[in-house]
Amino acid sequence: MKIAGFDIGGANTDLAIIDFEDGEIKKIIVDFEYLPMWSQNDRLESVLIDLIERNLPVEQIDAVGISMTAELVDAFNTKAEGVLDIATTCEKLFDVPVAYIGVDNVLSISDLVQNPLEVAAANWIATSQIVAEIEPNCIFIDTGSTTTDIIPIKDGKECAVGRTDFERSATGELVYTGTLRTNVTSFVDSIPIGDKTYRVASELFAITADVYNALGLIKKEDYVCATADGSGKTKVESERRLSRVVCADLDILSHEEVLEMADYIHKQQVRQIACGLKDVSEREGLDTVVVTGLGKDILCAEAARLLGLEVKSMGDYYTDEECVVAPAIGTAIMVKNYFEN
Amino acid sequence: MKIAGFDIGGANTDLAIIDFEDGEIKKIIVDFEYLPMWSQNDRLESVLIDLIERNLPVEQIDAVGISMTAELVDAFNTKAEGVLDIATTCEKLFDVPVAYIGVDNVLSISDLVQNPLEVAAANWIATSQIVAEIEPNCIFIDTGSTTTDIIPIKDGKECAVGRTDFERSATGELVYTGTLRTNVTSFVDSIPIGDKTYRVASELFAITADVYNALGLIKKEDYVCATADGSGKTKVESERRLSRVVCADLDILSHEEVLEMADYIHKQQVRQIACGLKDVSEREGLDTVVVTGLGKDILCAEAARLLGLEVKSMGDYYTDEECVVAPAIGTAIMVKNYFEN
Repeated sequence: MKIAGFDIGGANTDLAIIDFEDGEIKKIIVDFEYLPMWSQNDRLESVLIDLIERNLPVEQIDAVGISMTAELVDAFNTKAEGVLDIATTCEKLFDVPVAYIGVDNVLSISDLVQNPLEVAAANWIATSQIVAEIEPNCIFIDTGSTTTDIIPIKDGKECAVGRTDFERSATGELVYTGTLRTNVTSFVDSIPIGDKTYRVASELFAITADVYNALGLIKKEDYVCATADGSGKTKVESERRLSRVVCADLDILSHEEVLEMADYIHKQQVRQIACGLKDVSEREGLDTVVVTGLGKDILCAEAARLLGLEVKSMGDYYTDEECVVAPAIGTAIMVKNYFEN
Repeated sequence: MKIAGFDIGGANTDLAIIDFEDGEIKKIIVDFEYLPMWSQNDRLESVLIDLIERNLPVEQIDAVGISMTAELVDAFNTKAEGVLDIATTCEKLFDVPVAYIGVDNVLSISDLVQNPLEVAAANWIATSQIVAEIEPNCIFIDTGSTTTDIIPIKDGKECAVGRTDFERSATGELVYTGTLRTNVTSFVDSIPIGDKTYRVASELFAITADVYNALGLIKKEDYVCATADGSGKTKVESERRLSRVVCADLDILSHEEVLEMADYIHKQQVRQIACGLKDVSEREGLDTVVVTGLGKDILCAEAARLLGLEVKSMGDYYTDEECVVAPAIGTAIMVKNYFEN
């Protein structure tokens, strides 16, 4: 039985195809594509099909699972409108059964139509399923390209106090900061260089992908989103974008000064994530953290260590590529269980 | 003698045409156009001509003055490249003499080519000329669409410690925040609504124009830049954009709650400007402030009052429309003096 689990985010659509044999995972295929849903949501149908077809013929898929966060993009007036638009696309596209990850249940399309908000920003529920098997009492932190989920798990069940992304932004369970797409000015107000401190320019001049590209903390192929200035993804181009953040350029700042900036910005982002983690850890009395996502080592683990928490990694159980699309894997597993019951 | 003074910013190109008679200002015509130089700098030539021509025939202009900040936009690799590109366009376009406002002097094109950085982000020098006539010992604050200049003036002369925008971002003399184009997440990390505090979503969901539009603090025609989601500029559309900043929508947040958010964001921006003003005021021992720019009343004056400083307004000497383009007026005056000497 082959299940395709999709995690349709605002910027990336992730896929995990899981081949189950006698109820056990036999093989996992993972893939993803950069799809900015705020401007190109009309491409969703072709991206979903292409993602499957470049791995195996779509006829081999027995069922499809969908989790999403893309309903928040500003192409949609409301989240309900976004959920319904995306679900309609999926229903038209697939001939096999489709189910949707909701915050409290897995839903069919008829359930979803009754309560579309149940499905909004529920992909962390899918990740919880996987993490709970690794560590039944922990907090998992998943830092993706754009956001960070910080979810408490007790006795093998997620117990997030916030259920929607709006609610979780108040509880520390969602810190809207990521490894690639985050405007550095959203979490840094000023940057020390030498013995002076420079206020930042409130433009979209550089993103976190530039920070980690300049520092050599991500691979070039990890920089999957668009650049702020439309130019390339070499280290020097990232450094040029970073220099603009303090109204400078590479005539003004040396290579070493830009790296000093990048290192400071990295530390600030670790602190930002640690702030949400502290809220959750203290409230729930949990001191073991399971890290996953593209930022698992450079951001999540650093944030946990800053607070003196014990760190486990999903990377000890899954490949790095699988960790990046953990919600898609969890979606496939949940949907298999849903259709079997 | 008619002088056209242009202030070519990253997002807006402002014009003041001053008609001088016997050395005195007889008449001022002001105008501006939204021109996002990061994506449409190839339109600069036509915008400069159109701005003049829709007010009077270009043949009546005797000389042109240029100040700029647009060299920082990320269409240019370096500021020097940006300055030279813009100056070349101006030289090709006008048959009359053209001069450029520099940080320490007014420059001809041959001076400029020797030292293009002298002209980068020097438009505040032009504003200083006007303010010094109103109040020879003061700090002027000019909050435009995008940035805030905070410049000390003593004995009728500006005495900013920082000369470039990079240097001024360290001295408090440039706070890169404005009345229209500023991403609210650049200066707000979390927002209280009711009895909870919500972390912000680090996207470009809403700008300060939405805050002041929702609060009724700017006129609809003042909202001259593009919206974040490409939709319209009604109050409800601004409120919808603001709701997304906390991962919500207008199904989740009431009109009153969005206004509560907007009011908080406004107060935070006042504090951000006050922080730079405090640095300058304490360092220079100046306690009178002259406010100008689109944000003169709603941001600059509020920031000055927060610090207990005395507030004077350029609005008592010039019309509101003239205050918005103060650097263009100062540019025309400085260039007239340059050509006369």
